Amino acid sequence: MKSHIIGYHTTQFGELWDKSLFDLVEESILGVLKNTNIEFGDIDAIFFGNMLGGILENNLHSGAKIADIFGLTMPIFRVEGACASGGMAFHLANEYVKSGKGKTVLVIGAEKMTDVQPEYITQGLMSAASGEEQESGMTFPGLYALMARVYLKKFGYNKSNLAAVAVKNHMHGFLNPTAHFRKIITEKQALESSLVADPLGLLDCSPVSDGAASLIISTNPTLIKKRHHVKVLSSQVATDSISLLQRNSLIELKATQIAAEKAFGESKIKRSDISIAEVHDCFTIAELFAMEDLGFWTKGEAGRRVTQYETLRDNNGPLIVNTSGGLKASGHPVGATGIKQIGELYVQLTNQADKRQIKNVKYGLAHNVGGSGGTAVVTIIGI
Amino acid sequence: MKSHIIGYHTTQFGELWDKSLFDLVEESILGVLKNTNIEFGDIDAIFFGNMLGGILENNLHSGAKIADIFGLTMPIFRVEGACASGGMAFHLANEYVKSGKGKTVLVIGAEKMTDVQPEYITQGLMSAASGEEQESGMTFPGLYALMARVYLKKFGYNKSNLAAVAVKNHMHGFLNPTAHFRKIITEKQALESSLVADPLGLLDCSPVSDGAASLIISTNPTLIKKRHHVKVLSSQVATDSISLLQRNSLIELKATQIAAEKAFGESKIKRSDISIAEVHDCFTIAELFAMEDLGFWTKGEAGRRVTQYETLRDNNGPLIVNTSGGLKASGHPVGATGIKQIGELYVQLTNQADKRQIKNVKYGLAHNVGGSGGTAVVTIIGI
Repeated sequence: MKSHIIGYHTTQFGELWDKSLFDLVEESILGVLKNTNIEFGDIDAIFFGNMLGGILENNLHSGAKIADIFGLTMPIFRVEGACASGGMAFHLANEYVKSGKGKTVLVIGAEKMTDVQPEYITQGLMSAASGEEQESGMTFPGLYALMARVYLKKFGYNKSNLAAVAVKNHMHGFLNPTAHFRKIITEKQALESSLVADPLGLLDCSPVSDGAASLIISTNPTLIKKRHHVKVLSSQVATDSISLLQRNSLIELKATQIAAEKAFGESKIKRSDISIAEVHDCFTIAELFAMEDLGFWTKGEAGRRVTQYETLRDNNGPLIVNTSGGLKASGHPVGATGIKQIGELYVQLTNQADKRQIKNVKYGLAHNVGGSGGTAVVTIIGI
Repeated sequence: MKSHIIGYHTTQFGELWDKSLFDLVEESILGVLKNTNIEFGDIDAIFFGNMLGGILENNLHSGAKIADIFGLTMPIFRVEGACASGGMAFHLANEYVKSGKGKTVLVIGAEKMTDVQPEYITQGLMSAASGEEQESGMTFPGLYALMARVYLKKFGYNKSNLAAVAVKNHMHGFLNPTAHFRKIITEKQALESSLVADPLGLLDCSPVSDGAASLIISTNPTLIKKRHHVKVLSSQVATDSISLLQRNSLIELKATQIAAEKAFGESKIKRSDISIAEVHDCFTIAELFAMEDLGFWTKGEAGRRVTQYETLRDNNGPLIVNTSGGLKASGHPVGATGIKQIGELYVQLTNQADKRQIKNVKYGLAHNVGGSGGTAVVTIIGI
C-alpha cells in the first residue's frame, strides 16, 4: 500500500511573541486533527522535526514533552537535521507507515526562534556548519554569499539575477495568509536593501521566524478514502560534506542532485511532469542552485531564467515555484519549513489553496536543505 | 524477512580527555565495519543517537558531519530522545530495514560529556525534564531520589535495598574491558558513599561518561549468513508524561510497562524465556523499577529480591541483569547507552563475551529510558 498524505495544518509563521515552542506544537497538532476529523486513537506515532530547542532554550526530549501536553503514550520521535529537520522527520514518518509499524502517523515540524537575541540565533544556526566554519567566524549568509560570488562570476551574472527570486517569492507570499511577510517588493527595493554579506542584501535572506506545521500520513484505506489525499511517490535523503572547504564545486549542492536523482528514479515520473515545486530558498542564490541541482534547469542557466520570472504563478508556466512564498516570504522556522513545503504541495494538489491555487496540478516536488547543503531531502507527491 | 543484528563495536567508556565526539564516532564506525568485514558500499543509511551535542558544544547537523568524516552521501539521521536517544535510533534503524528502504543500516550512539564543567552537564541533562522541574531547580538525582523515597517508604525498605544493585553491577563491570569503572565495591562502601540526593549516594548514581557504540542491522541474507547474527524479535517505544507532577504513581514507569507489554506481545516469547537483560540503571532505584515494570518481578518485590543477588552472574540464576556493568559501572555516555545495551546482548547471544560470557543464552531484552521515564524503549533479540 502506498502511503498517502491525508491532512495538513500550519500555524501562522512570523514573530509570534506570545507563543512558546509547545504552544505552536499544540496549535498545529490540534489543527491537523480537526482538519482531518482524526483522533489520537487513530495515530500510531508522532515524528517531530526541530533543530534549535536544545541550544536556544535547553529544551530536549521533546517527544515526551509532546506526550505530556496531550496525555499520550505512543512513540514520539524527535529528528534533527539542521534546517532539513522537517524533511527528515517526514521521511522517517513515511518509512514508519511503509514498514507497517504504524498505519497512520502525524509528523510535525516546529521552531521558536524569536525569543532570544539575534546573536544567539546566528550562533545557534552555526551549529549546523563545520567546526572550521564556526571557528573562523563564518555565518550562513557568509557561506551562501561565498557560493553566490563564485556562481555570479563564473556565469557573468550580477545581483539582479538574485533579486528576481526575492521579488517572485514575495509576490507569492502576498497570497498566502500564513506567510511571515505578505508584502510585494520591487527589484529596486531588493537591490537597495542593506548589504548582509556581499552580494546578499537583506532582501536576499529568509527571515528568522516562529511557526509549526503538521501533516498526517496514512496507509489505512478507510481513513484515506474519506479525506483529501495525495500519494507519497518518493522521499529521498542524501548527505554531502558539511564544510565548503571539502567540496569540489561551490556552485552546486551535490546532496540535492543525489536526492533528486533517486527521487525521480523511485517515483518513475519525469521532471516535466512536475508542475509545482517548493524549493529551499534560504537565500535567493539557493533557489538558483535548487532549480539546477534538482535537474529542472541546466547548470548556469538559472541566473538568466529567474529574471524571466518563468516560475511566477502569474506567468502560467509549466512549473511554478514556491507558491507558499518560499522560505523568503513565507518565513523559515527551521524545523517547520520541510513540513510546510510538503503541506503547500498537498493543499495545491487537493485544490484547497484558495487565492493562490494553481490549476491542474498533478505532481509536486519539495526540496529541503540542511546547512549549506550537507543534507538534502527531496519528496515527490502526486494525486 | 526478519531484521538481524550482524555486528557490534563499542569504544572504551570513560573520561576520554583526548577524544572528541567525532573521534569516538569515527572509531566506533570503523570498528564495527572492521569487526564485520563490511564496507560503506553495503550500508544504505546511518542512524545517529546523540543527546547533548547541541547544548554542550553547539554541534548539530551531525548526520552531515559524519558524512564529512568519511566522504559519504548516504542518508544519515540524527535521533534524539534524551537518554533513550540510542534506543530510539535503533528502533528507527530497524524500521528502516523492515520497510525495505534499506537492506543494511548502521546505527551508532555517542556522547562526549566530560569536556565541560559539571554544572553545564547537570543543566544540559535537565533539558530532558519538564519546564517546571527545570525552573524549580530539580536535578536528575533529585527526581530519582524523590521516587526512591516513595518506593522505600511504601514497601518498608532502606538504602541497603538500593546498594545491592550497585554492588552487583560493579561486579559485572569488573569483567567488561570497555566499562568506565572496573572496580568491585562493597555494600558498606556503597552505603557510606557521599550523599547526592537522599537516599541516593554517589555509588547509587551512574557516572558522566564519554563513549560511542555501533551496531549493524541487516535483512540481506548474504551478509547475515557469514556473520555472527541474532534476530530482532521486537523493538517498542512508549512515552509518558515527562513531569513527575503529572503522574498518578511515583513508583513505576508507565512508559516501560507499555513498551514491555508491546514487545513481549510482538515477539511472542515469555518473560521466563529471557535469560539476560540490560536495564536502564541510571540510578540504583531505576533497576528496581525496571525489573518490576518490565514484568519480571511484581511491584514492591524488587527491593527484597535485589538483596538476594538473584541476577548476579555468579549465582547462575535464570535471569542475569546488566552483564555489561549497566549504566552504573559500564558508564553512561547517554546517546551510546541504548546501543551498548543491545550490543552487550548481541555479544552474549553470539558467544563473544569472553570472561563475562553467560551460558546458553537464547533471548535477551534491552531497556533504555529517557529522562525520569518520559520515554522507554524495549528491544528483544533472539538467536
